Amino acid sequence: MTPTHEPPATAAPLDTGLLSPVRAGTPVEAAVGDTAWLQAMLDAEAALARAQARCGTVPQSAAAHITAAARAEHLDIRQLALAARETANPVVGLVKQLTTLVARRSPEAAEYVHRGSTSQDIFDTGAMLVASRALRQIVTDLKVVAAALTGLAATHRDTVMAGRTLTLHAVPTTFGLKAAGWRQLVLAATTRLEHVAVNGLPVALGGAAGTLAGYLQYADDDAAPAAVLDNLVTAFADETGLATPVLPWHALRTPIADLAAALAHTSGALGKIAADVQVLTRTEIGEATEPTTDDRGMSSAMPHKRNPVLATLIRSAALQVPALTSTLTHCLTTEDERSAGVWHTEWQPLRECLRLTGGAAHTAVELVQGLTIHPEQMRTNLNMTGGQIVSERVSAFLAPRLGKTVAKDLLTQASRQAAETHRPLAEVLHRLPQLNGVLTPTELTDLLDPTAYTGAAGPLVDCALAAPYPHYPTHQGRCAVRE
Amino acid sequence: MTPTHEPPATAAPLDTGLLSPVRAGTPVEAAVGDTAWLQAMLDAEAALARAQARCGTVPQSAAAHITAAARAEHLDIRQLALAARETANPVVGLVKQLTTLVARRSPEAAEYVHRGSTSQDIFDTGAMLVASRALRQIVTDLKVVAAALTGLAATHRDTVMAGRTLTLHAVPTTFGLKAAGWRQLVLAATTRLEHVAVNGLPVALGGAAGTLAGYLQYADDDAAPAAVLDNLVTAFADETGLATPVLPWHALRTPIADLAAALAHTSGALGKIAADVQVLTRTEIGEATEPTTDDRGMSSAMPHKRNPVLATLIRSAALQVPALTSTLTHCLTTEDERSAGVWHTEWQPLRECLRLTGGAAHTAVELVQGLTIHPEQMRTNLNMTGGQIVSERVSAFLAPRLGKTVAKDLLTQASRQAAETHRPLAEVLHRLPQLNGVLTPTELTDLLDPTAYTGAAGPLVDCALAAPYPHYPTHQGRCAVRE
Amino acid sequence: MTPTHEPPATAAPLDTGLLSPVRAGTPVEAAVGDTAWLQAMLDAEAALARAQARCGTVPQSAAAHITAAARAEHLDIRQLALAARETANPVVGLVKQLTTLVARRSPEAAEYVHRGSTSQDIFDTGAMLVASRALRQIVTDLKVVAAALTGLAATHRDTVMAGRTLTLHAVPTTFGLKAAGWRQLVLAATTRLEHVAVNGLPVALGGAAGTLAGYLQYADDDAAPAAVLDNLVTAFADETGLATPVLPWHALRTPIADLAAALAHTSGALGKIAADVQVLTRTEIGEATEPTTDDRGMSSAMPHKRNPVLATLIRSAALQVPALTSTLTHCLTTEDERSAGVWHTEWQPLRECLRLTGGAAHTAVELVQGLTIHPEQMRTNLNMTGGQIVSERVSAFLAPRLGKTVAKDLLTQASRQAAETHRPLAEVLHRLPQLNGVLTPTELTDLLDPTAYTGAAGPLVDCALAAPYPHYPTHQGRCAVRE
Amino acid sequence: MTPTHEPPATAAPLDTGLLSPVRAGTPVEAAVGDTAWLQAMLDAEAALARAQARCGTVPQSAAAHITAAARAEHLDIRQLALAARETANPVVGLVKQLTTLVARRSPEAAEYVHRGSTSQDIFDTGAMLVASRALRQIVTDLKVVAAALTGLAATHRDTVMAGRTLTLHAVPTTFGLKAAGWRQLVLAATTRLEHVAVNGLPVALGGAAGTLAGYLQYADDDAAPAAVLDNLVTAFADETGLATPVLPWHALRTPIADLAAALAHTSGALGKIAADVQVLTRTEIGEATEPTTDDRGMSSAMPHKRNPVLATLIRSAALQVPALTSTLTHCLTTEDERSAGVWHTEWQPLRECLRLTGGAAHTAVELVQGLTIHPEQMRTNLNMTGGQIVSERVSAFLAPRLGKTVAKDLLTQASRQAAETHRPLAEVLHRLPQLNGVLTPTELTDLLDPTAYTGAAGPLVDCALAAPYPHYPTHQGRCAVRE
Repeated sequence: MTPTHEPPATAAPLDTGLLSPVRAGTPVEAAVGDTAWLQAMLDAEAALARAQARCGTVPQSAAAHITAAARAEHLDIRQLALAARETANPVVGLVKQLTTLVARRSPEAAEYVHRGSTSQDIFDTGAMLVASRALRQIVTDLKVVAAALTGLAATHRDTVMAGRTLTLHAVPTTFGLKAAGWRQLVLAATTRLEHVAVNGLPVALGGAAGTLAGYLQYADDDAAPAAVLDNLVTAFADETGLATPVLPWHALRTPIADLAAALAHTSGALGKIAADVQVLTRTEIGEATEPTTDDRGMSSAMPHKRNPVLATLIRSAALQVPALTSTLTHCLTTEDERSAGVWHTEWQPLRECLRLTGGAAHTAVELVQGLTIHPEQMRTNLNMTGGQIVSERVSAFLAPRLGKTVAKDLLTQASRQAAETHRPLAEVLHRLPQLNGVLTPTELTDLLDPTAYTGAAGPLVDCALAAPYPHYPTHQGRCAVRE
Repeated sequence: MTPTHEPPATAAPLDTGLLSPVRAGTPVEAAVGDTAWLQAMLDAEAALARAQARCGTVPQSAAAHITAAARAEHLDIRQLALAARETANPVVGLVKQLTTLVARRSPEAAEYVHRGSTSQDIFDTGAMLVASRALRQIVTDLKVVAAALTGLAATHRDTVMAGRTLTLHAVPTTFGLKAAGWRQLVLAATTRLEHVAVNGLPVALGGAAGTLAGYLQYADDDAAPAAVLDNLVTAFADETGLATPVLPWHALRTPIADLAAALAHTSGALGKIAADVQVLTRTEIGEATEPTTDDRGMSSAMPHKRNPVLATLIRSAALQVPALTSTLTHCLTTEDERSAGVWHTEWQPLRECLRLTGGAAHTAVELVQGLTIHPEQMRTNLNMTGGQIVSERVSAFLAPRLGKTVAKDLLTQASRQAAETHRPLAEVLHRLPQLNGVLTPTELTDLLDPTAYTGAAGPLVDCALAAPYPHYPTHQGRCAVRE
Repeated sequence: MTPTHEPPATAAPLDTGLLSPVRAGTPVEAAVGDTAWLQAMLDAEAALARAQARCGTVPQSAAAHITAAARAEHLDIRQLALAARETANPVVGLVKQLTTLVARRSPEAAEYVHRGSTSQDIFDTGAMLVASRALRQIVTDLKVVAAALTGLAATHRDTVMAGRTLTLHAVPTTFGLKAAGWRQLVLAATTRLEHVAVNGLPVALGGAAGTLAGYLQYADDDAAPAAVLDNLVTAFADETGLATPVLPWHALRTPIADLAAALAHTSGALGKIAADVQVLTRTEIGEATEPTTDDRGMSSAMPHKRNPVLATLIRSAALQVPALTSTLTHCLTTEDERSAGVWHTEWQPLRECLRLTGGAAHTAVELVQGLTIHPEQMRTNLNMTGGQIVSERVSAFLAPRLGKTVAKDLLTQASRQAAETHRPLAEVLHRLPQLNGVLTPTELTDLLDPTAYTGAAGPLVDCALAAPYPHYPTHQGRCAVRE
Repeated sequence: MTPTHEPPATAAPLDTGLLSPVRAGTPVEAAVGDTAWLQAMLDAEAALARAQARCGTVPQSAAAHITAAARAEHLDIRQLALAARETANPVVGLVKQLTTLVARRSPEAAEYVHRGSTSQDIFDTGAMLVASRALRQIVTDLKVVAAALTGLAATHRDTVMAGRTLTLHAVPTTFGLKAAGWRQLVLAATTRLEHVAVNGLPVALGGAAGTLAGYLQYADDDAAPAAVLDNLVTAFADETGLATPVLPWHALRTPIADLAAALAHTSGALGKIAADVQVLTRTEIGEATEPTTDDRGMSSAMPHKRNPVLATLIRSAALQVPALTSTLTHCLTTEDERSAGVWHTEWQPLRECLRLTGGAAHTAVELVQGLTIHPEQMRTNLNMTGGQIVSERVSAFLAPRLGKTVAKDLLTQASRQAAETHRPLAEVLHRLPQLNGVLTPTELTDLLDPTAYTGAAGPLVDCALAAPYPHYPTHQGRCAVRE
């Protein structure tokens, strides 16, 4: 007999997050860990028994015993993992241990454990439960992130800063518009996750090869298969809170692909924020500072350092997830009614994607809630190029007067000269004979004011913040805001 | 002056599809090729001019001249590609060549080419046009695939075959259920593609750094930026047929991520079909044959071969797409208002994903429309294990009578004995003393008939075929079919 | 004070291998787990202190105290992981805890912990130690695999079977040649791993930004930096058993890329074996059987199943590793003297690659040592096509007599007719008027004997087995064997 | 008859590089294009015929005719690509067209085209020829890059600049050390490519299923297979200049994996340079400038911009290659003697990896040869933190005097105060009572000089430049340089 109540012979290794601090100690880490995963599979077994009880193929009392026994803390999880090497999945061992546990309560009830079922029904339903619980936490965090970004965007609606393209100052923008863009990405990701969470996570119920034959074999002989099927699937979905699939999906991995897509989107959205924060915190740029606590950002060597660790952690997640999701979508190409290996490939990458994305979302809450913006430094940087940052504007102003090619060439030469001689663009332009009579000194001064060339940045922020909470897809919004 | 009407100095290399036969000569190949991509960018320039004309910032006649001149065949595309090495994108050169072409028609109109615009607005809008056109073709092909699969599923609703898991015969299933599963995957993919096609492909309109400042600079001074913005975006969307974004998305790459997700889903769905067809066409299995034409499937060495080339081509696409889409989702993590390299990374993988997926869809039409099924061979294979394929059923029948553990152990031993002695399971079971009085010979014969153990396969096919055309997500369907 | 000897407040989650059975309980799992990784980092700290003692910048007694204290079991590892969220790496916390531990032994010695060092020196040196230890285990397993494959290849040198291409019977081959091919792949992988293990795993020693300034600051003022540097690096390499780098490699990630390449090669080599075994074990093919133990291969539903679980586990690893290694090579593109996120991205994928590959190697030992081959079934399958499997041979025989095109077309038609009428190819050919006088009945019979058309399969096996143990690269071998 | 001399009915699409400017017009683009690939396959056919002639199984004159006819310009390449859809590879069609071409010269010789061969022998040998030619070009470019970097490293051996970690100033370093690091990475990549180029690219010679049976069938009946095999392989390797494999490698894809590894290494090495250059060219940092030509770096909107386009192009390649190589290593896991799809998956990604890496190498030549360094700006930036950049040094100086923890805490507080009050660190430290008598003003001034705290940067540059040209692996070097 398996000594399930005694300490396991082989100590299970730890998963402390030592190599993955982005998720260490976050709620999603616990929600997708081995123990939670085991509990979710046990929840699936229990829900199946209750669903069968509702359909009359399992006694209510047996379902109750199974439900009561199905507690992860009563199983030897390391032993399950080791036994999974013999069967290529942990459910065969789980059924054994669970049957023993139920038998202690009621030998009769033990007969009904996993009745008519197959490993994949339990594993996949468990995985959907894990995903569902993890998505809830991720979405919760993302909504806090979005709310904080709403605040940043509103507060800094008119905080002018250098827009940067291909590493260089391009034209002015506002930090409000940048924050509104981050928020829009986060909302898009949230919408996609919610979309998956609401209808995209179905129970798995197919039996040995997707025909439900095992379940039907145990059901009332006289019932029509279609009715049994419909009732059982409905009851199972109801007991688990998951969706009902059109067909058993053992080898039709749409739910995994949908999860992969939404998680990649989310980690990428957070990665964009992190990448931008890292630019803004560079010593030479200094336009933003991460929130600090006592030890936050400490270096083991350099006392003066306050490293942008939150952005670093988030970026480390964002750089890992795309490859992991490629493995998951790769697994759509799978053979037979159940693959010898492709299904098994999904498990760890799916967990890792949930964990990294959830860790990044949790970290992002702290980052955006505590991010300090330095408008004066933004203004200082904005003036670094002595007006070149608005060369586009002067060129556009002159184009109708001189022709667009002449105007652009003029500004190109003037900008080059200004850069090489370290003089303000105004000074160079002022001396150009070609501009005599074309541009008054006042016009020139006005044109070269970087704070006056933010285009529609303000109204764009207003639009974005006023837009209704997007339903997926998010690209149909129209701005109804007028100044 | 650029000699756009003379043969290019440097001959452009060919893209014949020699290394990618899955898409050689397919409609999507032409739709995403260099020439089509250039035309789409020119369409974007022309649509922008017309949109500006509608907003009153460009003369109608200029817009008309620009539209007339914007024909790919008048540009030197190889020269554009080479020039793109100087500017990191092909639009700078395109604007030059287009301006020259327009100037030949009207020097005045030439002033209005690319007015207030930026390379990325043109490139990204062009990319969305290309994607839109390619998705239309892919969806068209997928609908034909789905229709053919509907036919296969209905025809073979009751064609019994071995269900296979982990490479081995598991329990019986039907080919109808397998085909219905393929169809469901294809419908799920189609739904996701349509979802992206309808609302997920927005115009790009942001100007140099996403503030639209350049466009506004050229607009009426008195107009409120919000109104200019709204009118211009709306007009541009209208002229291109694309969606309107909430914000300029230069550095917010949701549309690319959505495309990547839907394309990975699609190629994976087709890959699943291919993987299954390859199993069924194995010499030893022989349950399906690909459609043949005269040269189809020929080997350069072996006269007898009729290789399953269509499935091979599809699989070769399905195995390439996931890594390419990981590159695309990776690019969500991008810095600044425009990245120095991350944006540029997207282009070729995006095209390749469209092309491979579209090629696979086109190839799948031929595959599923012409697939021949061999029901007799399926029946022969079904009987290969001498009844072991229904060991689950016998075990389930005996479980209530002997206890589930005893029943399963009994069948495990009997199956092993049958396998080792090459005897039918019936014969082994018949001789088991434990089954005396538990199972009549008639019951045993009935239980061991593989064609009688297909569970809900038939009703599942009915359900799936009767389900309404799915809107994304597809997991909410309930079967309303009763036998 | 950190209560390092008391149970941690927050229980660390478990890493049982529940979702990754391919490595559950294998030696490499323990060698790369959190505890082993922490120990390796502590080993790096201790080796650094001893190296500094050898260079005279740290007292010998302090180095001894540090070495004695540096035991993973004395640190609170979960607390380190949680603290790593504040500093983006676990070394800052490790130094704190280690300093406390050393201070208990000797407050003076505590002054010398991590002297002049930086987190990355310790982390990366620790990672190289972990990799080194893991590679040793992997190579050990691979050599056992290769030895078993040598046996299989020799035993089955002349066991004829169907060669299969594009899922179909092509021409005959031998199982010996297949096994020799597997062995060659495994040897190639082993060679690459050994290559990395011997010279490719260097100590990391750069100090805060790769100049070793911190180390030099603490060194003798009068010593020339070059001498200090050389002595210290040499001593550190000596104390750890690792290689010496030409330059500090904080941001020059050649060692990680080399590891990634060799591990991808290895998991792919094992994946090839698994893929082939899966084909051979298919119910309809039945040419090989995985080793079985009592519970091995059991299904939770189907009593008759003996699933090829070892190949399944191996394949599940082989399908995960390539994406993980792409993340590692991606990290070569890293900014500055230390990236804010790219370095941190490497950690978990590197461990996962080691663990999956090592688990696959360990599993492969069991697979190939116990693989049962069924020569009679191979012979039966070989004859399935009624001689078509040697159509190439007949065609080649006839080519010089009839012309190659005529010969091939003839065989194509004959094969098609044989297939369609389910007759042996001999019978069809026999009746062909074109072959009258060209081919005697005896010749035809001889030509159509599949066992007589194995080409150089036997000599190729001899060559491969006689070839010297390959040094990387492996492609220069020449066969010196003569029959 | 195929009208091979007339213009193809279906025009082949162009591959101008429009979406991949990193390689547009570079030598490697031409070397791996469709035409070059076709020529390489034709070269393989011709070399095979000549090798067979040397072995006596093909007449010398036939080999000469085949060689003369095997010119890509005489085949209809688009027609080959389209025909490849029927056979899943382009060789079947190639053999047809080539046979026709040879027959025009000599009907007898046409009999010997592709004698005994199989599509994969020709395709793979062609691919190795393409790779070999491309590697030669890439290595040539890399050596120029390395030479230029040697110059930069030597010139700037003592050019002090801020070392940056996690986006912040860490401690001083030198540009010479940075350039030496880039060089080391490039040398490591070059070594790996050369390693593959010299011995890692073997001919493919296996016949239909890897037994060479077809070749032997045509050979002298009396010759021993081993001798035939050895002679033929040797002659084929000799005729092509490629290596000889131990075994036919149709399904043993070590050469592809080796190529993938070396190319990923190379593109990553170049990506590292690009990432660093992008940081240094940021407007606020301004420590380096890309070489400019007239149009280089132009924006379509902003006249003042001189974008770092070379680094941008290189980075766009480096971000694409890792995913593509993951597809290639994925293909190691392939079934049977030739997979139905896995082999076909390799083709386009292999070419793309060669092309992107080669384009990046070519671009890097221009980048590093023309890179301008701004030492004064480096000095200005170095002083930006008012001495905090050497806080480590002060801390290390004080540690033996105050204890390491006290010293570090003191510097942490002082640095924070300096940062918050925008005062030089010297001033803050000067006023600290704890430092009275511990640190003289002169000592403080000396310690806070950033240019005096470059550690071993100079000697490390000397070491790296003096090290012998590395053979793979590169980590065994020892510095023998003394100051």
